[in-house]
Amino acid sequence: MRAVVLDKGLRYEPDYPKPQPGEGQCLVRVHMAGICATDLQLVKGYMDFKGVVGHEFVGTVASGPANLKNKRVACEINFVCRKCELCLAGLATHCPNRTVLGISNQDGCFADYVVAPEHNLHPVPDSVSDEEAVFVEPLAAAYQVLAQCPVEERTKITVIGSGRLGLLVAQALKTKGCKLTVVGRNKKTLTFCEKKGIQGIHVDKLVARQDRDVVVECSGAAEGLTIAMELVRPRGTIVLKSTHAEAGALNLAPIVVNEVNLLGSRCGPFGEAINALARQAVDVRSMISKTFPIEKALEAFKAAEDRNNVKVLLKMNAK
Amino acid sequence: MRAVVLDKGLRYEPDYPKPQPGEGQCLVRVHMAGICATDLQLVKGYMDFKGVVGHEFVGTVASGPANLKNKRVACEINFVCRKCELCLAGLATHCPNRTVLGISNQDGCFADYVVAPEHNLHPVPDSVSDEEAVFVEPLAAAYQVLAQCPVEERTKITVIGSGRLGLLVAQALKTKGCKLTVVGRNKKTLTFCEKKGIQGIHVDKLVARQDRDVVVECSGAAEGLTIAMELVRPRGTIVLKSTHAEAGALNLAPIVVNEVNLLGSRCGPFGEAINALARQAVDVRSMISKTFPIEKALEAFKAAEDRNNVKVLLKMNAK
Repeated sequence: MRAVVLDKGLRYEPDYPKPQPGEGQCLVRVHMAGICATDLQLVKGYMDFKGVVGHEFVGTVASGPANLKNKRVACEINFVCRKCELCLAGLATHCPNRTVLGISNQDGCFADYVVAPEHNLHPVPDSVSDEEAVFVEPLAAAYQVLAQCPVEERTKITVIGSGRLGLLVAQALKTKGCKLTVVGRNKKTLTFCEKKGIQGIHVDKLVARQDRDVVVECSGAAEGLTIAMELVRPRGTIVLKSTHAEAGALNLAPIVVNEVNLLGSRCGPFGEAINALARQAVDVRSMISKTFPIEKALEAFKAAEDRNNVKVLLKMNAK
Repeated sequence: MRAVVLDKGLRYEPDYPKPQPGEGQCLVRVHMAGICATDLQLVKGYMDFKGVVGHEFVGTVASGPANLKNKRVACEINFVCRKCELCLAGLATHCPNRTVLGISNQDGCFADYVVAPEHNLHPVPDSVSDEEAVFVEPLAAAYQVLAQCPVEERTKITVIGSGRLGLLVAQALKTKGCKLTVVGRNKKTLTFCEKKGIQGIHVDKLVARQDRDVVVECSGAAEGLTIAMELVRPRGTIVLKSTHAEAGALNLAPIVVNEVNLLGSRCGPFGEAINALARQAVDVRSMISKTFPIEKALEAFKAAEDRNNVKVLLKMNAK
C-alpha cells in the first residue's frame, strides 16, 4: 500500500506492507488525513518516532465487527491496555502501556490502510464531510480545554496562537459565549477570527494587563508561555496545549507570585467534537488551505510548515 | 535605631531612622526575626529591593489602637490598598498596589522597629514563644498548600527540598495523615523528617515512578521542577512554592503530555499557622540552627547560606 514513512528522513513509500489487524482491532481504509504540528515535530526528531506518520484521519472500516463494518469513522489516537490501574481509574488516555497512532510505537494513518482497536473508533454522521471529519481529533483536543477548565459567559479568556490549534480552540471556546480574544502574528488568521466574531489582536499591539481569567497557550513557542504569564490574572489559569515546547529559558516566578494554575492539556472528547461539527458550531472547512494526494506528501509537509497555510490535508482514497 | 539595610550591598546600620506609622498603621518593636531564602535572594538582586530587609518576625505593638497596643504580634507581609478590584474580590494578597514588607517598596523587620497596617497584625497567644512565633509567616506559606490543594489521608504526596520551607510544608502536610515523603540532599534534615515520622529520601536514591498525586516543589532549584515532573502521576498536581527559581532551561512537555496541574503558591493563612504552633502540631524549635544578635546580621546571613543550617534567627529586643 501507499504510505508516508519516517525513518532516517520522511519519504513517500508506494509499496509499504498493509497492516494486519490484531484481536479486537479493525482495518480501516483511509480517505483523508490532516497534517498537525506534532507531525512536523516528529520529522525534527520529537519522540524518536519511526514508521508511518499521521494521526488525524477519517476512513471506512474494511474489516471489523458488524456494528462497525463499512462505517465511516474517526479514531482516538491512544491505543491503551484497558487493564492497568490508570485505565481502570478512567484515565485511559494516560495508560502507561499505550502506543500512540503515528506518534509512539504505532504506525499511523498517512497510508491507504491503518489498524486501530474497535474501542477507538467513532462513527461519523453523514452530515459531516470527509474534509470536516479529519478535524475530529484536533477539535477534540480543543474541547479538552473546556473539559478541564470551567468557562462561562463571564470568563475573560485569551488564546495565544492563531494557527491550526489556536483557531480550533478559539472556535470551541466561542460556543460558550465567553469574553474571548486571540493573539497571533498572522493577519490572515486574525482576520478569520474577526469574521467569526472573535477579537483578534496582533502580538505587537498587545498590552499586558494581567486581567484574563484563562489564557490558552497554543503557539508552541516558549515566548507564548511568557506572554500568557503577562496576561493572566492572579489566581487565573494558563492552559498549556502545545506538546512541542522545546527546552527553553523560562522564568516561572510569575506563576508563584501570582499563584497561577498552569494546566497541561492533551487529547479530548471525540463526542463533543463530532457533535460540534454535525451541528456546524465550528467552521473547519475555511481552515483548509491545501489538499495534496498522498503521493505528494513531502510537498504537503512543506506546505504545512508555511505559516501562510493553516490546515493542509492529504487525500488517500475516495469514500 | 539598629537596622539591616540592603543598598549597594547588605550592611548593619546602628543609626537608621526610626519609622513613623502612617494612618491605620502601628509601630511594632521587633523581638526576633527569621532569615528566609527570599532574603538571601534579595541580596543577590531579586526584586531590586533597597531598604531594611526582613519579613518574618514577632514583636510588640508600641503604638497603635487599644485592641493591639502592647500585644505581641506576627505580621502579614502584603500591605494592600483594600480598595482595588482584587482587594474587594477577596484576593488582597494579589493587590496590584501592594508593597511587601522587606521585599518590595517597604522597609522590613530586621530592625528595632517596623511599621505595619493594623489589619496585618495577628496577636500571638502566650503559649507560643518568640522563637516559635518567628515561624508564623513561613508556616502560613506552608499551610497555603493545603488551602489550594485538597490533601486527604489517601493522598500520595512528595515534598522536594528538605530545607527551611520544605520541612515546614512537610510538617503541615503531616497533620493531614497523608502518604508523605520528602526528597532532599541533606542527611541531617532527612533524619529530622524520619524523627517526625515522615519518610525522607535522598535525591540520589530516588526512583521516578509517576505515582504521586501531589508534589510540592520547595527546593528552589530548576532541577526540583524536573524531578517533580518525573514523580507526579498523570493528572496530578505540582505545587510550586519557590519564588526564586531563576530562568533556566526547562522542558515543560511532560506537563502537557501528562496533563499535570502546576499550581503557584505564595503567602498563606496566618490563623492556621498560629493555631498549629499553639497546639504544637508542628515542631519549629528543632529547626532553629543558630541565633545571632542584630549587630551580627552579616554573619547570620552567611550562616543562613550554609546548607548545614536550617533556620537562622536574629534577635533584636527582649520581650
